Amino acid sequence: MATLLDIGVSAAINIVSALAFLLAFALLRLQPINDRVYFPKWYINGERSSPRGSDNFVGRFVNLNVRTYFTFLNWMPQALRMSEEQIVRHAGLDSAVFLRIYILGLKIFLPITLVALLILIPVNVSNGTLSFLRKDLVMSNIDKLSISNVRPRSIRFFFHIALQYLFTFWTCFMLYKEYGYVARMRLRFLASQGRCVEQFTVVVQNVPRVGGRSLFDSVDHFFKMNHPDHYLCYQAVYNANKFARLAKKRDRLQNWLDYNQLKYERHGDKRPTRKNGFCGLWGERVDSIDYYKQQIKDLDKKITSERQKIVNDPNSVLPVAFVSFDSRWGAAVCAQTQQSRNPTRWLTDWAPEPRDVYWKNLAIPFVSLSLRKLLISIAVFALVFFYMIPIAFVQSLANLEGLERVAPILKPVIELKIIKSFLQGFLPGLALKIFLIILPSLLMFMSKIEGYISWSMLERKTSAKYYFFMLVNVFLGSIIAGTAFEQLDAFLHQPPTQIPRTIGVSIPMKATFFITYIMVDGWAGIASEILRLKPLVIFHLKNMFLVKTERDREKAMNPGSVDFPETLPSIQLYFLLGIVYAVVTPILLPFVLVFFAFAYFVYRHQVINVYNQRYESVAAFWPHVHSRIIASLLISQFLLLGLLSTKKAANSTPLLVVLPVLTLSFHKYCKHRFEPAFRNYPIEEAMAKDNAERAAEPGLNLRAYLADAYLHPIFHLFDFDEQELARMEVKRHQSQHSGPLESTTALASPRPEV
Amino acid sequence: MATLLDIGVSAAINIVSALAFLLAFALLRLQPINDRVYFPKWYINGERSSPRGSDNFVGRFVNLNVRTYFTFLNWMPQALRMSEEQIVRHAGLDSAVFLRIYILGLKIFLPITLVALLILIPVNVSNGTLSFLRKDLVMSNIDKLSISNVRPRSIRFFFHIALQYLFTFWTCFMLYKEYGYVARMRLRFLASQGRCVEQFTVVVQNVPRVGGRSLFDSVDHFFKMNHPDHYLCYQAVYNANKFARLAKKRDRLQNWLDYNQLKYERHGDKRPTRKNGFCGLWGERVDSIDYYKQQIKDLDKKITSERQKIVNDPNSVLPVAFVSFDSRWGAAVCAQTQQSRNPTRWLTDWAPEPRDVYWKNLAIPFVSLSLRKLLISIAVFALVFFYMIPIAFVQSLANLEGLERVAPILKPVIELKIIKSFLQGFLPGLALKIFLIILPSLLMFMSKIEGYISWSMLERKTSAKYYFFMLVNVFLGSIIAGTAFEQLDAFLHQPPTQIPRTIGVSIPMKATFFITYIMVDGWAGIASEILRLKPLVIFHLKNMFLVKTERDREKAMNPGSVDFPETLPSIQLYFLLGIVYAVVTPILLPFVLVFFAFAYFVYRHQVINVYNQRYESVAAFWPHVHSRIIASLLISQFLLLGLLSTKKAANSTPLLVVLPVLTLSFHKYCKHRFEPAFRNYPIEEAMAKDNAERAAEPGLNLRAYLADAYLHPIFHLFDFDEQELARMEVKRHQSQHSGPLESTTALASPRPEV
Repeated sequence: MATLLDIGVSAAINIVSALAFLLAFALLRLQPINDRVYFPKWYINGERSSPRGSDNFVGRFVNLNVRTYFTFLNWMPQALRMSEEQIVRHAGLDSAVFLRIYILGLKIFLPITLVALLILIPVNVSNGTLSFLRKDLVMSNIDKLSISNVRPRSIRFFFHIALQYLFTFWTCFMLYKEYGYVARMRLRFLASQGRCVEQFTVVVQNVPRVGGRSLFDSVDHFFKMNHPDHYLCYQAVYNANKFARLAKKRDRLQNWLDYNQLKYERHGDKRPTRKNGFCGLWGERVDSIDYYKQQIKDLDKKITSERQKIVNDPNSVLPVAFVSFDSRWGAAVCAQTQQSRNPTRWLTDWAPEPRDVYWKNLAIPFVSLSLRKLLISIAVFALVFFYMIPIAFVQSLANLEGLERVAPILKPVIELKIIKSFLQGFLPGLALKIFLIILPSLLMFMSKIEGYISWSMLERKTSAKYYFFMLVNVFLGSIIAGTAFEQLDAFLHQPPTQIPRTIGVSIPMKATFFITYIMVDGWAGIASEILRLKPLVIFHLKNMFLVKTERDREKAMNPGSVDFPETLPSIQLYFLLGIVYAVVTPILLPFVLVFFAFAYFVYRHQVINVYNQRYESVAAFWPHVHSRIIASLLISQFLLLGLLSTKKAANSTPLLVVLPVLTLSFHKYCKHRFEPAFRNYPIEEAMAKDNAERAAEPGLNLRAYLADAYLHPIFHLFDFDEQELARMEVKRHQSQHSGPLESTTALASPRPEV
Repeated sequence: MATLLDIGVSAAINIVSALAFLLAFALLRLQPINDRVYFPKWYINGERSSPRGSDNFVGRFVNLNVRTYFTFLNWMPQALRMSEEQIVRHAGLDSAVFLRIYILGLKIFLPITLVALLILIPVNVSNGTLSFLRKDLVMSNIDKLSISNVRPRSIRFFFHIALQYLFTFWTCFMLYKEYGYVARMRLRFLASQGRCVEQFTVVVQNVPRVGGRSLFDSVDHFFKMNHPDHYLCYQAVYNANKFARLAKKRDRLQNWLDYNQLKYERHGDKRPTRKNGFCGLWGERVDSIDYYKQQIKDLDKKITSERQKIVNDPNSVLPVAFVSFDSRWGAAVCAQTQQSRNPTRWLTDWAPEPRDVYWKNLAIPFVSLSLRKLLISIAVFALVFFYMIPIAFVQSLANLEGLERVAPILKPVIELKIIKSFLQGFLPGLALKIFLIILPSLLMFMSKIEGYISWSMLERKTSAKYYFFMLVNVFLGSIIAGTAFEQLDAFLHQPPTQIPRTIGVSIPMKATFFITYIMVDGWAGIASEILRLKPLVIFHLKNMFLVKTERDREKAMNPGSVDFPETLPSIQLYFLLGIVYAVVTPILLPFVLVFFAFAYFVYRHQVINVYNQRYESVAAFWPHVHSRIIASLLISQFLLLGLLSTKKAANSTPLLVVLPVLTLSFHKYCKHRFEPAFRNYPIEEAMAKDNAERAAEPGLNLRAYLADAYLHPIFHLFDFDEQELARMEVKRHQSQHSGPLESTTALASPRPEV
């Protein structure tokens, strides 16, 4: 058990490293050369086009103004200067609401911390069992401050129970206010938003193929028939997977060409060459620039013919369409109602924003979707509970003997004692580390297989899976020894009332571990987030080898976005820790508070200066945040129940059992009260907005406005005249197929992952 | 343990009593005097107006045709003569689909019975443990046919596992086909249905009271604003609770007047008298006929003034309205979409049929509704698990000593040995019996408190509660000794894997008990249903004392309806028994089969000749039937898992664990595939029906058709000119309040329970 001194040392180390990150950030961000790494948002918004700094040559790369170095923490007040409304306009509602989660954390935990420290610490410290009764046991000082220090059967447990009630009510009250506020923010944002194509558009999946009629015809006929007053036009979706692959390849070749041309320009003496075989490893040596130019030319031909093929082959039309209406009212009605008597066909839902669409999943049929969901839930369950099995297998292979067998040359080196012990300590951890690094991508991959059609949905579902993983493997896994699988096995063979006791008893003992975890992951981890080491390195590498024009430099910037699949679960873990330890070991709370405050500053800075969200889901993730905090409350209640029952405070059980029931009904009430605002677009709102628009712009040509809205992003990779060409081809094709002339088309394919 | 002989005796007794019921029914139904008890449906349909039979005086009461007595079972072929389509037209879709549940039972269990008997009985009988190893134990012959007879660790358990798979797949297959068939039946019924007011009408709850504007105005304004193209008119709902109470009282007084007048006419010598004090027990003696006439006259005045008050007091308008549209499309859109930005206001849903509306619950506000649901779920839980506590308390009071103390006069009688022992056996059971008789009404009362707005919904919810009660107290309660509360306590302290083992082990031992249960409740119980003893007695009593005119005689008929809250749970219990015992003790299956076949005949006869459904929910109960059979499958799988693990057939666990996962995903798929057909009315259907109607009747005046549709049933208790009067008052009132002239109104109050 760690003593207070241990924790102090750990805190010192983490504070120093966090300060080191902040200092590095402060120095690096002042250099004009890094301006595009630390302030990309301003470039993207168009408010800045070249780095600030003096005009002389050196000043364009290095900041020579000494005074600015002395104010190295001034990004913090700068980050606070923007109001919430400005942030909504500047970075979107998702980012603004994301920041509110940290504020919510502060609002919930600041009073709880004060009350818990003032009331519980005196209650726990005085009259302790630990210091008097069991002097032989080495108990940490932390434990003296926790509930462990209270004698069994003590009347003092009613303080803990009363505070658990108080904290639950306070948390629910704050959650209620916040849910209402966010729901209003969402509706206000939607109401004040300018005209967007997704307000008029509905995505229709599982369009049935009726024999003898083209998909174009049947979509058009169905909506003309069933929504005669408001239906406007539709956009078909093509299967352009191969096309997207080719476009991606062309992009890669273009990069190589740029690299070689730049190399030639800088060292003008000799044209760069390469071998023309596989990966440039063998074959005849040729001139690189000519080689890539030729390759691109060949590829362009292929791309053109592939596009022709897509547009002319009726089988490349997918059974899915974006259907647009002449009013938001019409779209709201179509999105919320069941269209066909077969509820697996003509499934309508709001269309995601065009940039939010995950094109590859649009056309998954209904039966396949059910099967995929089943398989992925089994896979996630297996991953969470059995992830140690493959890792242990890899570890058993990746030991020193294995390495020696594979690479006998290394044997003398490996046999050196110091290297051997280093490797022996390092190798088994490596497999685990690699697994944890690829875990988010793996979960995202699983969500993609599940078949969600928008990036926002994919990220939310990935986040849910990641939270489940963290809950089982970080929270429960740290409290109870053994792998998750062993726990699962134990739980199946224990009575349900025993489980909270088993976990509850261990809870106070793990407080020091979680305090350290918060400092490492929460404090130092967040500080490293602001430094953006990886984007910094990649930007400078690209700048050196690939960037020719200003436009290339723009492309080399990688602002990133709020990484919802990783950040949301980790915030929720902090909420869980805070709520669980609030009455058990309240000394943990200040550490959580520092995390929320510090992370709020850092992410506010990043949201203002760095991130560029790739979609706007209008805070669609809030119901998840809310329900996971409710889940934390429930977990804390059951664990306290178990803990107190081992403390023989048996009378407490009936008192505490009421709490989960109340919490659950609060959750149910909130779900009915607020969640519809995150799913549906109320008819009233739609009508009001339609009327306002009609009054303001009576002669608006909506059809022209919607024409190319859901054109596949693949087209945007080419020049404008090529796009024009493609669009004309599509038009020509439609008139050949006697489709409606007014409709436009989009090509579907996996979006190239940048 | 019962032997085969015991079961044979029990079967003989039950068959004899069932036959006795049938014989009595056959004799009674042939008497013309009972014609209105056994064939009321034909009178209500208008196809029969007086009993069949000869024209002489005696022949009008007693059947003298001897030949008809010899064919006393011919109601069975008669019941089969109607086709399903005819039944749908004759008695509605609810009844037709209700009969299909029995057919489904036969379809599922007939093949299962054959396979189970042919394969499992030989497997179980030969090589038995019971007969050879433990000769000292008295085992029943039934057990030799069951899974108990197979040696532990035997390879033969794979037969049971394979058959469990087979039976699950077969059941799911039949369920899938049936769900699809019923969904199609429902859509076909809705499509072929004539014009109904509920197709055009939506019920709007939680209409907000905006200051300064009347509810009339705000409803009209809201829908004119947000559904401008399709909104037609609305009908306000008044709070007429007191009004309905008065009307009910008037009805009762009228009954007394009729009784006295009839008495006077028959025994013309002396006018009947009564005392005019409380309940006619004291006070001055007056002439009864004059007394009741005066009372009715006074009451009529009160009723008129109350009606005036309702119509003129703006506070009696409830925040709820029936809003009608000019097309089914408009109503479908409004019912399925969210109207207001506050999702707890302007809640829209399909209006129930006018006769299906439960008027009292229309105006419960949203917050109260959440609270009621919470309280009632707690109450149901308590009722199911702790219902023995109040009964034990009443039993402890209602013993002989208590009786003697209350009524010392009875002491000598009670002390007689024979009477004492009879009472001692009888009294404790009485409290339980009374509880079981009032249980359905109690559950219905709870559902009413929960706030559902239609009778069909109330009956479905009551049925769900009753099923839960039966599952815990009849099924589990019979298998495991002790009260449900003791079981709950035991389960909380056992590991989750232990629970299926505890129950699973007892399952085969209880087979004989359930066989007897099926014979008593299923065979003899169903036979007593066809006899309709209670309605028979009540009809003749009414006929004797109250009936003056033909119209009174019509009113005295009480055809009843399919009692969904009681019949659905009990059928589902038989499904559960059949599915659980299919692989464990297959000898139980023939008994279940006989129940399904026999009940099918009986209910088919009743549906055709007796019942008159008071609403048509268009088979809305089917999803519940489906999901409870799925639940039975899951229960049977877990119990087999537990049973086999005690038989040390440990390898079986992984094999059997797959089954619940598959069953659950099948359920989820069915839910998505079919359930929307039971919730929503597809836009496509609505549009098709609208178009067909417009083509057939271009000049239809829908407004006139809808005018009085949702007029409160209380008005129908009065004569026509009174109704006319009320309507005119309402109109006058509306023009005074500057409300829209075209809207009509309805008075809401608890429907008088007949």
